[in-house]
Amino acid sequence: MNDVRNDGPVDATLVPRYAGIATFMRLPVAASAVGHDVVFAGVPYDGATTNRPGTRHGPREMRSQSALIRRVNANGVAPYERLSVADIGDCPTNPFDIRETLEMIEAFFADVRTAGAVPIAAGGDHLISLPILRALAKDRPVALIHFDSHSDTGPGYFGVNPYTHGTPFRRAVEERLIIPERTVQIGIRGSVYSKGDLDFARDAGFRIIEMEEAMDLGPRAIVEEARRVVGEAPVYVSFDIDCIDPSAAPGTGTPEIGGFTTREAQRMVRGLAGLPIIGADVVEVSPPLDVGGITALAGATMMFELLSAIAAG
Amino acid sequence: MNDVRNDGPVDATLVPRYAGIATFMRLPVAASAVGHDVVFAGVPYDGATTNRPGTRHGPREMRSQSALIRRVNANGVAPYERLSVADIGDCPTNPFDIRETLEMIEAFFADVRTAGAVPIAAGGDHLISLPILRALAKDRPVALIHFDSHSDTGPGYFGVNPYTHGTPFRRAVEERLIIPERTVQIGIRGSVYSKGDLDFARDAGFRIIEMEEAMDLGPRAIVEEARRVVGEAPVYVSFDIDCIDPSAAPGTGTPEIGGFTTREAQRMVRGLAGLPIIGADVVEVSPPLDVGGITALAGATMMFELLSAIAAG
Amino acid sequence: MNDVRNDGPVDATLVPRYAGIATFMRLPVAASAVGHDVVFAGVPYDGATTNRPGTRHGPREMRSQSALIRRVNANGVAPYERLSVADIGDCPTNPFDIRETLEMIEAFFADVRTAGAVPIAAGGDHLISLPILRALAKDRPVALIHFDSHSDTGPGYFGVNPYTHGTPFRRAVEERLIIPERTVQIGIRGSVYSKGDLDFARDAGFRIIEMEEAMDLGPRAIVEEARRVVGEAPVYVSFDIDCIDPSAAPGTGTPEIGGFTTREAQRMVRGLAGLPIIGADVVEVSPPLDVGGITALAGATMMFELLSAIAAG
Amino acid sequence: MNDVRNDGPVDATLVPRYAGIATFMRLPVAASAVGHDVVFAGVPYDGATTNRPGTRHGPREMRSQSALIRRVNANGVAPYERLSVADIGDCPTNPFDIRETLEMIEAFFADVRTAGAVPIAAGGDHLISLPILRALAKDRPVALIHFDSHSDTGPGYFGVNPYTHGTPFRRAVEERLIIPERTVQIGIRGSVYSKGDLDFARDAGFRIIEMEEAMDLGPRAIVEEARRVVGEAPVYVSFDIDCIDPSAAPGTGTPEIGGFTTREAQRMVRGLAGLPIIGADVVEVSPPLDVGGITALAGATMMFELLSAIAAG
Amino acid sequence: MNDVRNDGPVDATLVPRYAGIATFMRLPVAASAVGHDVVFAGVPYDGATTNRPGTRHGPREMRSQSALIRRVNANGVAPYERLSVADIGDCPTNPFDIRETLEMIEAFFADVRTAGAVPIAAGGDHLISLPILRALAKDRPVALIHFDSHSDTGPGYFGVNPYTHGTPFRRAVEERLIIPERTVQIGIRGSVYSKGDLDFARDAGFRIIEMEEAMDLGPRAIVEEARRVVGEAPVYVSFDIDCIDPSAAPGTGTPEIGGFTTREAQRMVRGLAGLPIIGADVVEVSPPLDVGGITALAGATMMFELLSAIAAG
Amino acid sequence: MNDVRNDGPVDATLVPRYAGIATFMRLPVAASAVGHDVVFAGVPYDGATTNRPGTRHGPREMRSQSALIRRVNANGVAPYERLSVADIGDCPTNPFDIRETLEMIEAFFADVRTAGAVPIAAGGDHLISLPILRALAKDRPVALIHFDSHSDTGPGYFGVNPYTHGTPFRRAVEERLIIPERTVQIGIRGSVYSKGDLDFARDAGFRIIEMEEAMDLGPRAIVEEARRVVGEAPVYVSFDIDCIDPSAAPGTGTPEIGGFTTREAQRMVRGLAGLPIIGADVVEVSPPLDVGGITALAGATMMFELLSAIAAG
Repeated sequence: MNDVRNDGPVDATLVPRYAGIATFMRLPVAASAVGHDVVFAGVPYDGATTNRPGTRHGPREMRSQSALIRRVNANGVAPYERLSVADIGDCPTNPFDIRETLEMIEAFFADVRTAGAVPIAAGGDHLISLPILRALAKDRPVALIHFDSHSDTGPGYFGVNPYTHGTPFRRAVEERLIIPERTVQIGIRGSVYSKGDLDFARDAGFRIIEMEEAMDLGPRAIVEEARRVVGEAPVYVSFDIDCIDPSAAPGTGTPEIGGFTTREAQRMVRGLAGLPIIGADVVEVSPPLDVGGITALAGATMMFELLSAIAAG
Repeated sequence: MNDVRNDGPVDATLVPRYAGIATFMRLPVAASAVGHDVVFAGVPYDGATTNRPGTRHGPREMRSQSALIRRVNANGVAPYERLSVADIGDCPTNPFDIRETLEMIEAFFADVRTAGAVPIAAGGDHLISLPILRALAKDRPVALIHFDSHSDTGPGYFGVNPYTHGTPFRRAVEERLIIPERTVQIGIRGSVYSKGDLDFARDAGFRIIEMEEAMDLGPRAIVEEARRVVGEAPVYVSFDIDCIDPSAAPGTGTPEIGGFTTREAQRMVRGLAGLPIIGADVVEVSPPLDVGGITALAGATMMFELLSAIAAG
Repeated sequence: MNDVRNDGPVDATLVPRYAGIATFMRLPVAASAVGHDVVFAGVPYDGATTNRPGTRHGPREMRSQSALIRRVNANGVAPYERLSVADIGDCPTNPFDIRETLEMIEAFFADVRTAGAVPIAAGGDHLISLPILRALAKDRPVALIHFDSHSDTGPGYFGVNPYTHGTPFRRAVEERLIIPERTVQIGIRGSVYSKGDLDFARDAGFRIIEMEEAMDLGPRAIVEEARRVVGEAPVYVSFDIDCIDPSAAPGTGTPEIGGFTTREAQRMVRGLAGLPIIGADVVEVSPPLDVGGITALAGATMMFELLSAIAAG
Repeated sequence: MNDVRNDGPVDATLVPRYAGIATFMRLPVAASAVGHDVVFAGVPYDGATTNRPGTRHGPREMRSQSALIRRVNANGVAPYERLSVADIGDCPTNPFDIRETLEMIEAFFADVRTAGAVPIAAGGDHLISLPILRALAKDRPVALIHFDSHSDTGPGYFGVNPYTHGTPFRRAVEERLIIPERTVQIGIRGSVYSKGDLDFARDAGFRIIEMEEAMDLGPRAIVEEARRVVGEAPVYVSFDIDCIDPSAAPGTGTPEIGGFTTREAQRMVRGLAGLPIIGADVVEVSPPLDVGGITALAGATMMFELLSAIAAG
Repeated sequence: MNDVRNDGPVDATLVPRYAGIATFMRLPVAASAVGHDVVFAGVPYDGATTNRPGTRHGPREMRSQSALIRRVNANGVAPYERLSVADIGDCPTNPFDIRETLEMIEAFFADVRTAGAVPIAAGGDHLISLPILRALAKDRPVALIHFDSHSDTGPGYFGVNPYTHGTPFRRAVEERLIIPERTVQIGIRGSVYSKGDLDFARDAGFRIIEMEEAMDLGPRAIVEEARRVVGEAPVYVSFDIDCIDPSAAPGTGTPEIGGFTTREAQRMVRGLAGLPIIGADVVEVSPPLDVGGITALAGATMMFELLSAIAAG
Repeated sequence: MNDVRNDGPVDATLVPRYAGIATFMRLPVAASAVGHDVVFAGVPYDGATTNRPGTRHGPREMRSQSALIRRVNANGVAPYERLSVADIGDCPTNPFDIRETLEMIEAFFADVRTAGAVPIAAGGDHLISLPILRALAKDRPVALIHFDSHSDTGPGYFGVNPYTHGTPFRRAVEERLIIPERTVQIGIRGSVYSKGDLDFARDAGFRIIEMEEAMDLGPRAIVEEARRVVGEAPVYVSFDIDCIDPSAAPGTGTPEIGGFTTREAQRMVRGLAGLPIIGADVVEVSPPLDVGGITALAGATMMFELLSAIAAG
């Protein structure tokens, strides 16, 4: 396998899609991001999960399900014609040490940035967004488009622990990795620990589109609002699979009923085409809790939609 | 554990949600309803099921999945700040005797009523609504808001048996437990045994919103219509999980495709806030038929939404 | 069992629905289509599948799940009052020989046509539509209403193989079995092999309603458009279960997220009532990939909706 | 289909085993037992279950899995060469009335006896053995070979109910349907309600081979002992699937770890060849609790082994 | 609920086993171990897992499955007649901090010891044995009977981390909590990281019965050997569910084929009756990886067998 | 990645086993067999399956589960210290053409042979053994050790088709690829199509150890007999996963109850150490029919045991 430039996925009309070693989108494996425009990478870590674990198995299953995805998006975008894309494998992590893992992830994605490639990461729990943002946005904060049923701006957990999958975007604000007023959270819903759970995000200036509002707006208007919020700033897109309804994404640790359909999610991500996306992730896919692989398939497809949105840029 | 008044669920930031003995919403267990405003109770009975059984396991699994639910509703309602709520365990039943079970259930909920608490019951099959109504409405009929894909107003089954999960609301009319013209059935759909299956309900004066109409109305207009129908009468809310689509609620005995999303259901139940709810149930969750626990999660969340609607009253 | 004329399904109020040998809709088994207006038949063949197999098990599981369906449609149509309907068992196939199987299927459905009955076939993979069309439309091409996430108008596979489940409708055009300008494809979505994948269909004159357009139109307008396209020509209806979203139909070989809900699908098929339907199929239900039987239930219900649409004609 | 005499199952080298309507062993369906030597019949009833239900679905799933079984037993017995065998469908039952169901089952199997056929019944819960014994042994008690993890000789349940799936063989003793000293129970294990749970059986004269003893004896010696106990009396064989270990038979309502392997069970049933078997059943297969269909497959195979033991007689 | 002394489980002939809030063996919940002879406790922690997580959900599912277990062991032991037994709920843990969790577990079980009760713990991953041993054996080392497919005497993981579920018994030797020459490991099998993986245990003086030897010895001789090794010292029993074969215990993080049957395991644990057991655990049950609940059932039954072995002492 | 010589699997104490792209045993991927002693290869083909398909997905899932396997066998064999081993990916196949696929497989393994490497193939259905034997034994027939519940020496299927997964070893005899009197079949059981199904094999001179005999012999004596039969001839080992009992290997197309435990299978394969093995396969693992991945795990472990047997040679 060559490490630089490639023709995209294996040809499914020659090699059946169920054949071959499973990589993201059946792409070649590369030893590093050097020479590529966009890279897929797994971050198999769920050590920051407060409730049900299993997302450490996310990358492997999303690779497996991604074999169902073909070369060209239904909307006509052909990412591999415009971009060199590769699977660079999984980021190292330490399942027993959150802080060391934060460093390992940051270092891994810093290399991706240095190589000039845009990363699309497959989690893993949502804490991984924080070290990726550290790698990509330490020198200048970026805009954030965040699909989720939870705001993930909690103070901490078990008293003193500041790093859980419920806190990455509070830390990102504190560390000036994201621009609060250029941050939009889409699909927030589900019960909360206390009435003030969204206060930090609101006070910081986030635009929060809770599900009740989202139902009334519909995907097109949500996208319009998201684009208004982020403006022309470089933008990071974080897609928590639990923004999707448990009927379509049961394989996740903290499901909340009343979510988006995949159809809505797909339309929203496609609506981001043309934005200056500097990185993205799809997180919280937990295969042990999945049924029939549909959550991993939804996650893998969202990775492809993110790639397509970048390619259409 | 104290039996009266309490602070609500165990604090999930101190005790992880996967820990501890499973009670509804992680609430304290109480020996009786005395001293509480609202009580959750299980009714593990499926002896009146005409087709696929399993709802006797509903209460246990809904307790288990309810651990995912936090203290405060996404719409801002904080039920435990306003109400003392407890899990009073399961109502006794006899799996071999329908009539004796009807008596046992009625006696159990009569005690709840005597204690001045509003019960939210977890079925069990739909027949359980009948003895609960006997306990709560024997002296004066009440209004009924009934979410279901079936009208449950059949004459009987196997000729002479008047008590099945397909007949409770016909019996309730006959026994003057509900006010027919203050009864609304929402989401009726699915094939029927004969053309006249809805005649009894219509002739009695029920307002039936079949799914085809429901699709055109949308959740907001449905709620409006339901509130118009029930007026200011005390109201019982019966939520059959099969009103939800099998994609989101596969774990039920008589699924019908073409149902509500949980998002729509949630919006409708939230829309009942402020009504004088005297009791409610969530029935027909059948764990052996469930996949990934999503039906039990949907059922448990609906119980929380019902609690929130009561608390917002 | 008598082979001609019958009273429809076993009476579910006398024989419980979980009892008895599983036939489509609990109908009598007939040795042939002679004497019946409409017949259900299985075509247990998946030898033309390019990716994940399993649809050979579709007929058996759809028979099993169809026991949940009662005599009368929710929309009031009572098909068994107007039509004599039977289950004529499974069409012979050869799992090792595509061309022989094509002949076996054609011969089987030619007999149905000769008997004057309208067939509703249960696949099997989508290639089976081709030999059924050969049986029903060899002498005059028919209109086609095609629900699917894929156009199935590919040239072939593995170079030279012209017969796969991705090619039936290209062959049908070439063999003048369908009228291209009276063909409508509904719900097309999902990634494709190349940008030109829909060119053949478009150039031939198909009306393609891709999912993005379908979302904007909604079920009612789609039906209207479909009826406009087919006009008054005799029409064949092919329903690929993967037109439905994986949340409601996970049990299929090439799922694509972002599909129709069963509610939308049901409304669309009901909207075909009155059209001169000469035959129909429900294909690509793959039980080994199903969860909780919901895909087979959706497939069986669609077969009943197709019967109802015919009965309402 | 002809009702009398037949050539046995459909030829699997001509019609694939996954094809066709599912009957026991792919045998023809007969309207009655008349003209046959042995008949398979389903008894879809689980109304006497004290804990987890679902065995009402047993017959249908055992029919489905039995398609895997070929014409000739591995031990060389070719039952269809010696016997005319048919599937006579399911016995009527009333899910809401134990006593009426007892009568319905007795009547159904009395007809089988009158026809001179030996029935092999598929349950349903274990209570069904009682009415079958009433039909077959009312005039003279028979020997009993009973594979089970439970003795099923309890006094009753919930005080006064004498008919549950835990009591059939106590009733059978009381009603003089079985000869206690010609009764052998094999594989008894699992926790019990009280120390005296086996007293009735022991006092009556049953030979009980508990699992600890069974482990030491091994299948061959168990068979020898069973044959010694039953002597030359006509014998009924009742096979509760929970005698098999949950690893091989998870789909049952009251599993007990530490059971037989299917290999041991198979050898034991084969060892009954030549005994004057007047009837048999395989009970307690609960498909909703099954995984991968292995319990239904084990149950169906045991039915075939029972047929083979009869044919070898 | 009274906290001291009790009559054991709820009477299953009065309250069906599927009813009621799930506690271990349907026992009363107690606020502490005070006043009881034996207590069951959950330790929902899997933060020391090197591969597949999920055992944090073990206690809840073992409670649920334990409802299948009755009052008296098949071997005649009636533990509740001799001992007061209660479920004292779950031990506190911190999912993000191994060392703090070690302290929390030690403190919790120190209280149990102070109360004079013998604990039977439900894990959680295998690291929990270490802090329990610290609580029970700090002042004098104890004998150990350890059922497992892994020796769990690794040096550490990821270089410096000394506390994982693969290291507890090395730490226990180093901390003088167990007597190496009175330690027996039963069922060791499966591939290892390096040839020397068992060197530490062997050098320390452990008696290791690898599976190949175990196959030749059989359960009875294994027990005899285990009793010889531990002699008359107070003994701790640690039962890792993965000592059982994946066919009977698929729900575990590091399954190894070729394991014990539950029948063998049961006979071995029963063989420990009369030993001076000071504590025990059943660990590594991972419900998200389980199928049909059989692993949790096996785990719960082993807890009951351990209780019975203690009661028979 | 380097293509020649390597240090074996990724170090699991540095990179967690759930991390990284899934290859057999976490080995490096090589572009060809050149430079390696043993190579693993997938053959994702199930087009010759007579009943339930799905084995085309076998290689991918066995790769995934093989991540659980460590470097050194429990019996002390350290294959990677003695051999250079790699994963050479999947063999090309054509899902629509049996004969072309036979040629593709033969060519692929001929290259392996030319490279001087011993292949261990992962099926796929059992027909794949035939073209592998053609590649490895065309010039001189070899001995065969065949673990299976079926003899796979049928004449054909559907009349004229000589190539199915039920015929490879008849063809191998006819084509003089195997030495009949140096062929041993182990574990044969299950019902057959006709009494003469084993005649061909017996007449040819195969030593058939049916399961009844195998039970009496036990693993050690079986191995001894197998070694006696094959003598000193070069030997091919074909391991059909359905030789294992469905409790441990449910994920296969034609399961037969009454099979080997994995413990027995493991002991038998280990017993082949030292034989001049020229190639081997593990076939008939069908992931869509699997539960909890245990069949794929058993298959992958058998591949490792085969490697170990070769390494111990």
